Amino acid sequence: MSRRINFINPFGSSVYDELIKKTLGHFCAADTVMEVTHLDACPPDIDFFYSKHMIEQSLYESVMVSEEQGYDAVIVGCLYDPGVRVARELVDIPVIGPLEASFQMAAYYGHSTMVLTDHRKAVPYLYDEAQRNGQGNSVRGVDAIDWFVKDMINDRAAVARDVVKLSREAANRFGAETVIMGCTIIAAIYQEYLMDGGEPSEVPIINPNLMALKMAEGLADLKQKGGYFIARQGYYMKPTGHFADEFARARKVWNSNKPDFSA
Amino acid sequence: MSRRINFINPFGSSVYDELIKKTLGHFCAADTVMEVTHLDACPPDIDFFYSKHMIEQSLYESVMVSEEQGYDAVIVGCLYDPGVRVARELVDIPVIGPLEASFQMAAYYGHSTMVLTDHRKAVPYLYDEAQRNGQGNSVRGVDAIDWFVKDMINDRAAVARDVVKLSREAANRFGAETVIMGCTIIAAIYQEYLMDGGEPSEVPIINPNLMALKMAEGLADLKQKGGYFIARQGYYMKPTGHFADEFARARKVWNSNKPDFSA
Amino acid sequence: MSRRINFINPFGSSVYDELIKKTLGHFCAADTVMEVTHLDACPPDIDFFYSKHMIEQSLYESVMVSEEQGYDAVIVGCLYDPGVRVARELVDIPVIGPLEASFQMAAYYGHSTMVLTDHRKAVPYLYDEAQRNGQGNSVRGVDAIDWFVKDMINDRAAVARDVVKLSREAANRFGAETVIMGCTIIAAIYQEYLMDGGEPSEVPIINPNLMALKMAEGLADLKQKGGYFIARQGYYMKPTGHFADEFARARKVWNSNKPDFSA
Amino acid sequence: MSRRINFINPFGSSVYDELIKKTLGHFCAADTVMEVTHLDACPPDIDFFYSKHMIEQSLYESVMVSEEQGYDAVIVGCLYDPGVRVARELVDIPVIGPLEASFQMAAYYGHSTMVLTDHRKAVPYLYDEAQRNGQGNSVRGVDAIDWFVKDMINDRAAVARDVVKLSREAANRFGAETVIMGCTIIAAIYQEYLMDGGEPSEVPIINPNLMALKMAEGLADLKQKGGYFIARQGYYMKPTGHFADEFARARKVWNSNKPDFSA
Amino acid sequence: MSRRINFINPFGSSVYDELIKKTLGHFCAADTVMEVTHLDACPPDIDFFYSKHMIEQSLYESVMVSEEQGYDAVIVGCLYDPGVRVARELVDIPVIGPLEASFQMAAYYGHSTMVLTDHRKAVPYLYDEAQRNGQGNSVRGVDAIDWFVKDMINDRAAVARDVVKLSREAANRFGAETVIMGCTIIAAIYQEYLMDGGEPSEVPIINPNLMALKMAEGLADLKQKGGYFIARQGYYMKPTGHFADEFARARKVWNSNKPDFSA
Amino acid sequence: MSRRINFINPFGSSVYDELIKKTLGHFCAADTVMEVTHLDACPPDIDFFYSKHMIEQSLYESVMVSEEQGYDAVIVGCLYDPGVRVARELVDIPVIGPLEASFQMAAYYGHSTMVLTDHRKAVPYLYDEAQRNGQGNSVRGVDAIDWFVKDMINDRAAVARDVVKLSREAANRFGAETVIMGCTIIAAIYQEYLMDGGEPSEVPIINPNLMALKMAEGLADLKQKGGYFIARQGYYMKPTGHFADEFARARKVWNSNKPDFSA
Repeated sequence: MSRRINFINPFGSSVYDELIKKTLGHFCAADTVMEVTHLDACPPDIDFFYSKHMIEQSLYESVMVSEEQGYDAVIVGCLYDPGVRVARELVDIPVIGPLEASFQMAAYYGHSTMVLTDHRKAVPYLYDEAQRNGQGNSVRGVDAIDWFVKDMINDRAAVARDVVKLSREAANRFGAETVIMGCTIIAAIYQEYLMDGGEPSEVPIINPNLMALKMAEGLADLKQKGGYFIARQGYYMKPTGHFADEFARARKVWNSNKPDFSA
Repeated sequence: MSRRINFINPFGSSVYDELIKKTLGHFCAADTVMEVTHLDACPPDIDFFYSKHMIEQSLYESVMVSEEQGYDAVIVGCLYDPGVRVARELVDIPVIGPLEASFQMAAYYGHSTMVLTDHRKAVPYLYDEAQRNGQGNSVRGVDAIDWFVKDMINDRAAVARDVVKLSREAANRFGAETVIMGCTIIAAIYQEYLMDGGEPSEVPIINPNLMALKMAEGLADLKQKGGYFIARQGYYMKPTGHFADEFARARKVWNSNKPDFSA
Repeated sequence: MSRRINFINPFGSSVYDELIKKTLGHFCAADTVMEVTHLDACPPDIDFFYSKHMIEQSLYESVMVSEEQGYDAVIVGCLYDPGVRVARELVDIPVIGPLEASFQMAAYYGHSTMVLTDHRKAVPYLYDEAQRNGQGNSVRGVDAIDWFVKDMINDRAAVARDVVKLSREAANRFGAETVIMGCTIIAAIYQEYLMDGGEPSEVPIINPNLMALKMAEGLADLKQKGGYFIARQGYYMKPTGHFADEFARARKVWNSNKPDFSA
Repeated sequence: MSRRINFINPFGSSVYDELIKKTLGHFCAADTVMEVTHLDACPPDIDFFYSKHMIEQSLYESVMVSEEQGYDAVIVGCLYDPGVRVARELVDIPVIGPLEASFQMAAYYGHSTMVLTDHRKAVPYLYDEAQRNGQGNSVRGVDAIDWFVKDMINDRAAVARDVVKLSREAANRFGAETVIMGCTIIAAIYQEYLMDGGEPSEVPIINPNLMALKMAEGLADLKQKGGYFIARQGYYMKPTGHFADEFARARKVWNSNKPDFSA
Repeated sequence: MSRRINFINPFGSSVYDELIKKTLGHFCAADTVMEVTHLDACPPDIDFFYSKHMIEQSLYESVMVSEEQGYDAVIVGCLYDPGVRVARELVDIPVIGPLEASFQMAAYYGHSTMVLTDHRKAVPYLYDEAQRNGQGNSVRGVDAIDWFVKDMINDRAAVARDVVKLSREAANRFGAETVIMGCTIIAAIYQEYLMDGGEPSEVPIINPNLMALKMAEGLADLKQKGGYFIARQGYYMKPTGHFADEFARARKVWNSNKPDFSA
Repeated sequence: MSRRINFINPFGSSVYDELIKKTLGHFCAADTVMEVTHLDACPPDIDFFYSKHMIEQSLYESVMVSEEQGYDAVIVGCLYDPGVRVARELVDIPVIGPLEASFQMAAYYGHSTMVLTDHRKAVPYLYDEAQRNGQGNSVRGVDAIDWFVKDMINDRAAVARDVVKLSREAANRFGAETVIMGCTIIAAIYQEYLMDGGEPSEVPIINPNLMALKMAEGLADLKQKGGYFIARQGYYMKPTGHFADEFARARKVWNSNKPDFSA
């Protein structure tokens, strides 16, 4: 029985789908069926918190539909891990965020790590996440290469060059042995550069898409075989009784009337 | 020049407004004009993360409108501090959350503190906030009295009794000198109980509404006199250029088409 | 009913009083009466721990007298927050230290902060305070501009220039979004420079005197209205029984015989 | 291409192999070939640090041989994660410890976790590991059911009963939403109990063997496809030059002359 | 050449000197000359922060005189470590506090520790010190037996009984392997009880007087042989130039005019 | 009664013994008899974790024999503190590691410290130890001078020069007031340089051999006089019953058949 994974690009745009497919497909296990999808009717990027919030509202729906369609796991394909924790309240399949997965698996790649993200606005956000999710003291810092995601896609060679150069400088400055690429799209661009024969970075770079994929495959297997479940007595408690009714009504209202931000 | 503060009950319901007015009005400074408002067209309570997310979307609009209407500060009246950080991206007036304000001012009330919240689902959420916002090691723990907010309002005497009893037990168990009431409505019920001549809790109880009010008044003064501003080069960077256009469009879409969850 | 606040310059010298009045008065609320006072018979500055200790002994007396004279709150006007915690043992009015107040309110000014103090001897002292009082991980570091307080007052233009230049450098080095001026006098000099039309620092600077003032006003209000009290069962336990007699005797001995360090 | 994983029971005894095979085989992915092996000529259990050290010496050899035999990953099957970090110095295939894997994956099972181990001597050891490896503050404590591993295997029903009862009590005491079984053998006994139709624990129990298996499968895939590597410029630097010669000589000495502790 | 150590009981009372001599003398090295002294003209006990502050002022003088009299090291005999850090600003001989010494040496006595102090007011104070000085996470908590020091001396048998009973309970509650006696006088009473043939506590008890003594002897040796010095470029910078003159004048004023709190 | 201390150089080589004797003998107390010994039949250096592990196996035997020969304490003379915690399981005399001793005593030398070690592979290892053993936040960082130990011994003048130069730079970069020499041999070389009249480093350097010696002398005294013991109910539990038999057998096997890595 194969495992089906939905890699959701949480952007109201299809422009990143192909790149993810191209750079991540190679790493799928034999019996993995991975779809790469995106969101409709929401803002094209997640750079500001207001648009992130709107995107998350669409994402919840997409995650719930994924479960209904029989996916065994979903990946939310952005290093902000947008909506990941809230989504776990809503479904019983595993929901994976690439940042969290990278923090979890970084110890296999080196003694310590850091995050190199796209834009400086993301730095304090990721710093907070590193404090909350990071493995003990192994996350040494967060820095940015100062590109906005919508510009990157148009000058991939320049992005790859910056990644190689700035990873070395940042790892040295923070005393980290590896660097987590702090943006799924930068990571994919760097992966494409490697596939095209580019010289690998001196400092080992962790591609968060790969980490999310492997975590998703493993948890999907466990889900299929009865080894996955989530504690429902605390943080992830689901609505029951009249709360369940309210939730169903709210979801229905949203779906019958959702604002279209893509215009 | 008086200062105008909007205390927003982030619930799609008017049932809590009167209680807040009654228990908080007494503590306003002489030249403070405080309105107590609530949200429209959104879920009536915030107990689950999905409804919290919908409420926050309405809240952002309410905060932006407050600034346009000339308020000098807003308070988001729920201990989840829902949407507080995102809202700071959107406006130049101070946005105050009662949980954060309580952590900030608790040191004046005793050497250490803890949070006693309503329901067990909120405990891990507040625990995370205590780690992120708490003053060093002064926040010793989080516990719950296990009431849902919509039931409380109907049996206030029982809530006040539980507050007094469980505060003592919890403070003892966690080694805390004071207890922050981890729900604005519990805090108001307890305040009302005191106003009706009830016996004060043995362990000092911090009312987060008071903390938020005083923080709002102070920051509103500074805003009026040129002493308040927020760093816009990092986390709180505002959209500019085409990002500003996108933001304006998204806000307009939302307003012309917002789903009505209150039905 | 107006609130009366005593801003105590904890120095055995009147040379700083005028500067504080000039730069802080503008920010008082309408119904605030703020006096700026200093200590008698104690060393003129607090740069060494031995003189800090002597100054604190005088300060306790001044704080107790302030309560007796009907002040609603006191501010101890030095970033060392000298004697603040001990003073809380002695009186029932709020005692505010500008460093603690700055840590508490910094989150409204930016995502993270740091302290820029006067002299390198103060750096490790403030580092310890940042660890103890700082809000979680939001305090990123402490640095110095390397001036002694008694020299500053005589070359204010040079101090203001250094503040602007070194704040930018230090914020960048520590990855902080704002800078707390780590000396009440530097802060006042910088405020005067702004009032004289000086170009504001690129990196937002938090003036600790303003933070202390607003915290004092808020707590004074609460004190007047029954919303302020301090836990007396632990750290801030007051002497009772024969301990109270001993305390009264000790205070009397001090007052009738206090050494005059101002000679 | 299938992935080959060596699950090494780091004990000088074959008595646990069958139980691991029985309770873990079901969870292997379709294309996984998992062997369960044990060590020769070393102490039968790991309860004291002196025997742990001897076992680790044998383990290193076993890990190096696993790489030479073409395994794609190894799991060191004991919650002490014995020798895991040192082994990573020696080989280029991933080395997985079930404790580390459980800390890494626990966030998918609940908001917070704790470890329930076998014997009280292990508690402080695991506490230290939780501090070093645990994800931020999500690991709330460590406790023991007070059994030695060699007794457990003979009274499995009693062990399963204790696990169910003590997990609930410990999770409650430490405020944790899930419990990591702090011993691979206890975990296997509990899994067997579930397979025999036993009532599941009320508090979700994380089986570390499953976590290690999924982490091993994922990293083995990445290794096969060029997505796994380990930073060799710091902690995991390998001997080169005359250090490599010394290492080769030392390994040869060990193999031609190793003490047999199994007698 | 023998080493001379001044064990200063920082109390304005001679009643504790004999007990310290009796219970500590046995542990002195062969070439150690230890004097047990106390302070004059200051409050008899240190239970409140106001009296602690007055005692510290006398203590500084006593420490400076000790250096002038040729002592090689001083111990400040109270678990509050009163004035220890400030005293290091003043002299070049080592100044030892028994709490800090106990934290430093506790790792030799067991994997983790806790402090059991006299009175509940001391608990938060020691908690803060444990955070600042404690070795990583090895200090698990602080608790009190709820005796004031002046009562203890009159009912030593009851104190010893409470120590034995409450140490076991507290160590169990906090998960600590050893207990630091959080009061020099309790520690001495317990030591006397052991010398009189009392049954030792089940949980190992660390006597802070012994820790301070051995730290003092070691540092005194290093001082004599050129191996002790203290960094004077930062926290422990000494006054020079006109600051030195001010300091000398202040000290003289104090000595010629000091208030007598012992009346 | 004199105290006997075995300073074990945990290297399979005698080349460092003379240097330790020369630079440490001067600091022994009058009644201390210190032997400097090394290990047989094990690798000559400890630079890689595999050789460290083999060395530790020999070390345990050496520590047990030291106790049998009547030593009062042992020092394990390498900054990795190799085998120190395990050795405490095995013997009742104190086992001292110079890194731990330096962290414990650093507070007497300055407000904060850091470690400057030999080679970059050691940096992350020592970083972990600093986190586990360091006194609160007083250990600010770890850096390397990038020498391997076997090369140092042949160019001592160059090592001393590098120590002086790099200590200043590193202390400045990390904001530390003192520097712990992170290698016993570097420390001895620097001490020899001082003894030969070399100019002392500007930044105070802590010699870990001296710290270990004084800790050993103090604990040896306490051991002789009944003031030293180690908690045996948890981490340091010793084997009893059939575990004791197994241990005795394992030790015998090792001794009758140990591999000779020194060839």
